[in-house]
Amino acid sequence: MIKSLVTGGAGFIGSHVAKHLIDAGHEVYVLDDLSGGFKSNIPDQAHFMEGSILDHQLLEKLFAEQKFDYVYHLAAYAAEGLSHFIKRFNYQNNLTGSVNLLNESIKNQVKCFVFTSSIAIYGDLPTPMTEEMTPQPEDPYGIAKWAFEQELAVSKKMFGQDYIIFRPHNVYGEGQNISDPYRNVLGIFMKQILEEKPLTIFGDGSQTRAFSHISEVAPVIAESVNHPAAFGETFNIGSDQTSSVHELAQMILEAFDSTLAIEFLPERMEVKHAHASHDKLKRFFKIPKECKLEEGIKKMAHWAKKQGLKAGKKFDEIEIYKNLPSSWK
Amino acid sequence: MIKSLVTGGAGFIGSHVAKHLIDAGHEVYVLDDLSGGFKSNIPDQAHFMEGSILDHQLLEKLFAEQKFDYVYHLAAYAAEGLSHFIKRFNYQNNLTGSVNLLNESIKNQVKCFVFTSSIAIYGDLPTPMTEEMTPQPEDPYGIAKWAFEQELAVSKKMFGQDYIIFRPHNVYGEGQNISDPYRNVLGIFMKQILEEKPLTIFGDGSQTRAFSHISEVAPVIAESVNHPAAFGETFNIGSDQTSSVHELAQMILEAFDSTLAIEFLPERMEVKHAHASHDKLKRFFKIPKECKLEEGIKKMAHWAKKQGLKAGKKFDEIEIYKNLPSSWK
Ligand SMILES: NC(=O)c1ccc[n+]([C@@H]2O[C@H](COP(=O)([O-])OP(=O)(O)OC[C@H]3O[C@@H](n4cnc5c(N)ncnc54)[C@H](O)[C@@H]3O)[C@@H](O)[C@H]2O)c1
Ligand SMILES: NC(=O)c1ccc[n+]([C@@H]2O[C@H](COP(=O)([O-])OP(=O)(O)OC[C@H]3O[C@@H](n4cnc5c(N)ncnc54)[C@H](O)[C@@H]3O)[C@@H](O)[C@H]2O)c1
Repeated sequence: MIKSLVTGGAGFIGSHVAKHLIDAGHEVYVLDDLSGGFKSNIPDQAHFMEGSILDHQLLEKLFAEQKFDYVYHLAAYAAEGLSHFIKRFNYQNNLTGSVNLLNESIKNQVKCFVFTSSIAIYGDLPTPMTEEMTPQPEDPYGIAKWAFEQELAVSKKMFGQDYIIFRPHNVYGEGQNISDPYRNVLGIFMKQILEEKPLTIFGDGSQTRAFSHISEVAPVIAESVNHPAAFGETFNIGSDQTSSVHELAQMILEAFDSTLAIEFLPERMEVKHAHASHDKLKRFFKIPKECKLEEGIKKMAHWAKKQGLKAGKKFDEIEIYKNLPSSWK
Repeated sequence: MIKSLVTGGAGFIGSHVAKHLIDAGHEVYVLDDLSGGFKSNIPDQAHFMEGSILDHQLLEKLFAEQKFDYVYHLAAYAAEGLSHFIKRFNYQNNLTGSVNLLNESIKNQVKCFVFTSSIAIYGDLPTPMTEEMTPQPEDPYGIAKWAFEQELAVSKKMFGQDYIIFRPHNVYGEGQNISDPYRNVLGIFMKQILEEKPLTIFGDGSQTRAFSHISEVAPVIAESVNHPAAFGETFNIGSDQTSSVHELAQMILEAFDSTLAIEFLPERMEVKHAHASHDKLKRFFKIPKECKLEEGIKKMAHWAKKQGLKAGKKFDEIEIYKNLPSSWK
């Protein structure tokens, strides 16, 4: 039986990837420290270990015992805007943690290391962003992701370690953490609606993103290892449909039949337009059916209403308070 | 009085920078964990604190108390070739440690953060390497240096933190650690001569470098903060004279009047040619008198013979043994 490790498997994308792997017949191990995920997300058939990718002794033992065929590395704290204010935490968790997993993968001959990087590595480059562009991240979150992408390339040269990199963007859907005020704009809006508070937008809401439903992302990541041609390659992944954050807020209000107000906060330093080309992805993989934003929002809204607000852990290790948006204090 | 912190001030370049700062009238604080440096290197007039840049609580206290005007950040473990095998240590010490210092500099309004990056960030790009080229590091050491360069740029945008980046290459001279088998080819050769062992070269010795005497490097770094035009800028720094490693070995044998043999070891994965343009440096700074390699070697040889071999700490936290050059085992 094929054995796969999914880090961050109690999280949003990771839990969906784990489900697809189980459906495909893998024996799945989930490693997650539950800092941003929920036990209830983890598929019943997966083996769950609560622990951190920063615990390299734990990883050493785990890899030596289990001899994984594949590693799907999704664990990270993906609060991009906040990363300026939690630099140390960001590099530790998202880079050193990743390096710990890579070390063990090299030592234990993992067949392919699948990594979810992010569109954040492109920073403010012109859209649509393509994989041939040289990344130019604009925040610590993006710098850490980009550094680890380079680390994978170097490790392939030095140790022959195979890998596939995905750069998702603004993924949303059922199972997402909607209680973290620092990330996931869809989750933030839905939480505000459930709490009957006005929806808050940084700036005038004209910034655009290609919000991508999980059903367009997770299946491709899960089955990617069956395509050796993709080893050593990097792919943008997500929707082609772009919308402004203001439009998004209106669609979500509609899906909830809500008449709450929209409140515009002072602009923060963030990328204005982020969408990516998926031509390369389409050349290498079979792409799932498109899920239009209106439709995806309905699915997620339905789920959010049903499950209600789940108390999540609020991140409270801010390192720099200077210039922190006051709504985050 | 101007107060400056020099991290790595017990090390080779850092101790020379500290001396120049003292001569220029700064009150100098040296922070060093002595992992690669020596107490005897630290100028008498400097305040010395033994401690690590990884100890962020120590840094918090130190910065709040001392309110430094300038930070010269030179602490690092600069074993480039070894960095493939000590990835976690590399990112912790050289990136997270740097980020800890940057956090405190931002919080305490340090006027300029001077950072020694490295020519390693260019990897195998065509020579002469110029600052306009987009870096393409080929090893974890270079990736960590490049990530921190990006972190400085982002922190200037977000927090207004000023900085100057220097990318030195193959600096050598009096005060250098010649007891570390993993780095500083001049030091390794001199140690081998003092121990009457053959000089060892990876590959055929045709790889070329621009070996740079410390007298061409340290004074410029020290006085750089007096040039506000250089804030936010990045500079290659070092010699224009290039030599092959084989030529270098012969010059050193000559300087020691030695007839020891040269032994060629299997090639390791390393950059073939590394030299950089210094046109930009010359536009911004007054450049010290050139020190020819033959002359610099004589000075260093004289010093090495006089001081003899000093037992240094051997790095013993190898993380990956796979593909480790057998001479390093
Ligand atoms: N959601 C997006 O829009 C998006 C976009 C681009 C990239 N990504 C990347 O995809 C991956 C998954 O993101 P997500 O949206 O599912 O986030 P998520 O927070 O729902 O999932 C991440 C999971 O990782 C776990 N985790 C965090 N730090 C850990 C640690 N040190 N040790 C063990 N587990 C740890 C969290 O508990 C959480 O369950 C991340 O790498 C993220 O950077 C996500
Ligand atoms: N020597 C070169 O040719 C060269 C070339 C390019 C860049 N650099 C960079 O210049 C800087 C100085 O290099 P060097 O040649 O003087 O090396 P060095 O080893 O002589 O000096 C580095 C000093 O940093 C200290 N140090 C290491 N980790 C520390 C930590 N965690 N906390 C506190 N102190 C720590 C060591 O004890 C040592 O004294 C480094 O950043 C290096 O990467 C050097």
